[in-house]
Amino acid sequence: MDKLLYTGKVKQMWSTNDPEVLRVVYTDQATAGNGKKKDNFKDKAELNNQISTLIFQYLEKNGVPTHFIKKISDKEELVKKCEMFPLEVVTRNIAAGHFSSRYGLDEGMRFAIPVEELFFKSDELDDPILNSSDAVALNVATKSEQEQMWSLSRQVNQLLINLFDEAGMDLVDFKLEFGKLHNGQIVLADEFSPDNCRLWDKKTKSHMDKDVYRRDIGDLTAVYKKVLARIEEVLEED
Amino acid sequence: MDKLLYTGKVKQMWSTNDPEVLRVVYTDQATAGNGKKKDNFKDKAELNNQISTLIFQYLEKNGVPTHFIKKISDKEELVKKCEMFPLEVVTRNIAAGHFSSRYGLDEGMRFAIPVEELFFKSDELDDPILNSSDAVALNVATKSEQEQMWSLSRQVNQLLINLFDEAGMDLVDFKLEFGKLHNGQIVLADEFSPDNCRLWDKKTKSHMDKDVYRRDIGDLTAVYKKVLARIEEVLEED
Ligand SMILES: Nc1ncnc2c1ncn2[C@@H]1O[C@H](COP(=O)(O)OP(=O)(O)O)[C@@H](O)[C@H]1O
Ligand SMILES: Nc1ncnc2c1ncn2[C@@H]1O[C@H](COP(=O)(O)OP(=O)(O)O)[C@@H](O)[C@H]1O
Ligand SMILES: [Mg+2]
Ligand SMILES: [Mg+2]
Repeated sequence: MDKLLYTGKVKQMWSTNDPEVLRVVYTDQATAGNGKKKDNFKDKAELNNQISTLIFQYLEKNGVPTHFIKKISDKEELVKKCEMFPLEVVTRNIAAGHFSSRYGLDEGMRFAIPVEELFFKSDELDDPILNSSDAVALNVATKSEQEQMWSLSRQVNQLLINLFDEAGMDLVDFKLEFGKLHNGQIVLADEFSPDNCRLWDKKTKSHMDKDVYRRDIGDLTAVYKKVLARIEEVLEED
Repeated sequence: MDKLLYTGKVKQMWSTNDPEVLRVVYTDQATAGNGKKKDNFKDKAELNNQISTLIFQYLEKNGVPTHFIKKISDKEELVKKCEMFPLEVVTRNIAAGHFSSRYGLDEGMRFAIPVEELFFKSDELDDPILNSSDAVALNVATKSEQEQMWSLSRQVNQLLINLFDEAGMDLVDFKLEFGKLHNGQIVLADEFSPDNCRLWDKKTKSHMDKDVYRRDIGDLTAVYKKVLARIEEVLEED
């Protein structure tokens, strides 16, 4: 019997017959401000599942090791069970969001070298930022583990800058989560969707990500559908 | 004629006849919470000047390049003029203060490897933390400049751990500021006093630094006098 192991802000994690495999069930929920704002959107579960599946398959195909096994229904996928790092591994190509507010800068400046930031995943502490030595001191990840995550993040960034560029979008920033497989290998886990990245339309500069919900400036479902359609088109061409 | 160039929270910086030399005038002011709390303490100017002079002379003698030239009166010293990095370069040997509150930890845990944190010196932004890539993106310091500052900070940490240990105190954490001389050399600047470090009595664990003022748990002047007396005693022995 599958057991519900964890109910997060947007997904449920279920055990399966195989102790090294989990079943992810996407929900229709969106949250902002670390759960302070919370709403449901029709079709969001299916959209996140579809987008994340396409992205993880594309990354796997291009050599990035991930937890992804397969999509098994509209709202469900199977993944390899990981021991997760309690970290949000953030890469920024263009100033936006917290970076801009923290340092009092307008959104939109493109960095010569991408900015790389770690946040400690902790709802009680409000996900505080930490640097490399903080993460070591807190026993969250060794220097070497951090370097492996950044090396994979850079690979992901290059691949996704290209993918979204072909799909007419700028990849502004994104958050990854990593975990360790049973055998110790560090792999990309969690999901990749407009929930955890910023995408700006290259022509209009309009927001095509969860900022439409955070900032109340658009229709989340419509925007996620557009993102899905655009990347499907690019990926079908190959 | 000397000109007042800058009035900070605890010091005034004056020009001198020599364009590469500044006169620092210490004031009796103490501030906390980035200036939200502000008070004057009799003898504080003299105490900070004396303590900082002893520490900078000790560091210079042991090979750390600094801005220090000489103490010229009770409240004044001459220093080499720097182009300052707008950074607070923080080293932590033991968890305390912001580190503890940020990550929800008790004060007192000793780190296996010192924690190294950078903060962006900006009163308007409330001195936000930044990591190495943030500092590069904001054009605050290159990777190589950051490495030079950390290398000097580590030297300072080792020297001061020893000095304060002999004086019966644990060096919990401290904040340094660095600047560039006319010739481009990076040197330790600003001051070193109980205003910008944490010192705990090794036996009683009592606070011997500005925390007595921040937390209203003691007499700042009395405590600074004790710190001065103890390091004078150690330094006279040599
Ligand atoms: N392969 C995996 N193995 C184990 N846990 C995972 C894996 N992938 C993601 N997770 C974790 O499962 C949870 C996913 O649910 P989510 O709704 O995103 O939660 P949260 O609110 O914690 O972000 C997250 O805590 C995430 O770290
Ligand atoms: N050698 C130096 N050359 C130029 N500026 C310096 C030097 N040493 C320290 N400073 C700067 O002078 C100011 C000292 O005054 P302080 O009261 O500490 O100011 P603040 O409130 O900005 O910390 C600081 O801004 C410090 O960065
Ligand atoms: Mg999540
Ligand atoms: Mg100062």
